[in-house]
Amino acid sequence: MDPRLNVIEAAQQRNAVYAYCAGLLAIKMFIVAFSTGFVRMKKKVTVNEEDAKRNMTLNTEEDPAVARVKRAHLNDLENIPMFLIISLMWISTSPDIVECHVLMWLYTFVRYVHTAVYAYYPVPQPARGICFIVGTLITLYMVVRNFIYYADFFRTV
Amino acid sequence: MDPRLNVIEAAQQRNAVYAYCAGLLAIKMFIVAFSTGFVRMKKKVTVNEEDAKRNMTLNTEEDPAVARVKRAHLNDLENIPMFLIISLMWISTSPDIVECHVLMWLYTFVRYVHTAVYAYYPVPQPARGICFIVGTLITLYMVVRNFIYYADFFRTV
Amino acid sequence: MDPRLNVIEAAQQRNAVYAYCAGLLAIKMFIVAFSTGFVRMKKKVTVNEEDAKRNMTLNTEEDPAVARVKRAHLNDLENIPMFLIISLMWISTSPDIVECHVLMWLYTFVRYVHTAVYAYYPVPQPARGICFIVGTLITLYMVVRNFIYYADFFRTV
Repeated sequence: MDPRLNVIEAAQQRNAVYAYCAGLLAIKMFIVAFSTGFVRMKKKVTVNEEDAKRNMTLNTEEDPAVARVKRAHLNDLENIPMFLIISLMWISTSPDIVECHVLMWLYTFVRYVHTAVYAYYPVPQPARGICFIVGTLITLYMVVRNFIYYADFFRTV
Repeated sequence: MDPRLNVIEAAQQRNAVYAYCAGLLAIKMFIVAFSTGFVRMKKKVTVNEEDAKRNMTLNTEEDPAVARVKRAHLNDLENIPMFLIISLMWISTSPDIVECHVLMWLYTFVRYVHTAVYAYYPVPQPARGICFIVGTLITLYMVVRNFIYYADFFRTV
Repeated sequence: MDPRLNVIEAAQQRNAVYAYCAGLLAIKMFIVAFSTGFVRMKKKVTVNEEDAKRNMTLNTEEDPAVARVKRAHLNDLENIPMFLIISLMWISTSPDIVECHVLMWLYTFVRYVHTAVYAYYPVPQPARGICFIVGTLITLYMVVRNFIYYADFFRTV
């Protein structure tokens, strides 16, 4: 077989892992987004005046259950888009395919657990903290790997 | 003509649609960001102690008009960066160019309408809800299309 | 040398600048994220009921110092992911390598300064405003450059 096909095949396998993890993380964020709406509807509270006219009570103070889901959502926003940008660069540096699978799936897994123990089944720390730290370390590891990979290209500038 | 040029041309057309939609969505988010500042200046309120010295009153409780614009902004943050990452993967899977145009421009359009009816001309639901749902469905459709496209590449891993 | 190698080399140099700036911005955001946690621990306050059991007092009203760091963090979320998506498109349009260095590093620099004068050493405006405006102008400049570059590809659609 043309050896260039192997390179393209390997790149597409990494893209496949990325596409699946990015998709699953997007789905997770939509679940959290819809939860906010569902909790609000169940408790019949809203923060928007124009919605209050539709049999919901206006409450500018956020309900504790809604506030919890929103904190989980904000934590996603603080972590997931940056991870997906950093990891997009990382998978383009031809990392080992097994390493690629392990890190991408582990990240996706810890973010699902993070949301579960933050928004839905609150447990005392350190469960949530461990998930956050593991996700952060994976992202920082990819940042450092990108730095090492691209360091060569600064010599000739 | 070299048939490979057609492939590159088609890919660049998809990139062009993506670049325009991403640019317009970025411009929209900056408009909302500046709105927060303008509303604060008009009402002469601020949440930062060091700014309060400059003829603005300090108010840790956010003004309702400012809070509304900020909720619209937060909703953007919850949706647009994830959409741009998912759709970046999707356009790289060589989707039909017409489908690409329809989905990308429709998404951009509903996000503009969402901001308009949320931050500037509040109307009762379901206007805002429909915009949010259409945007979500487009993103989820692209996630599923990515899953189907990349499913093949997992066999040989 | 094969002239195609020069093109690849130049593209990789741009990717290198992007990877370094994206990495440094990710590191900055993690510093801010950990600051929130540290300030909370130092003041022994928490917003989560389950954490309150661990010798911290529950306080749904955010402490002013924590609120300040969180506003700086939110401002990052409003700007950095969109910039990294827009600039990713921009570097793929083969911009001048010097311009690429100047704009990418300047953006990274002003975001570091923005965080410093917002979260850690609050100074009166306009220091923070200038950083925000410079970052916004760089992003909008790239949006316009992308529009110009890709305008050609709409003719043949």
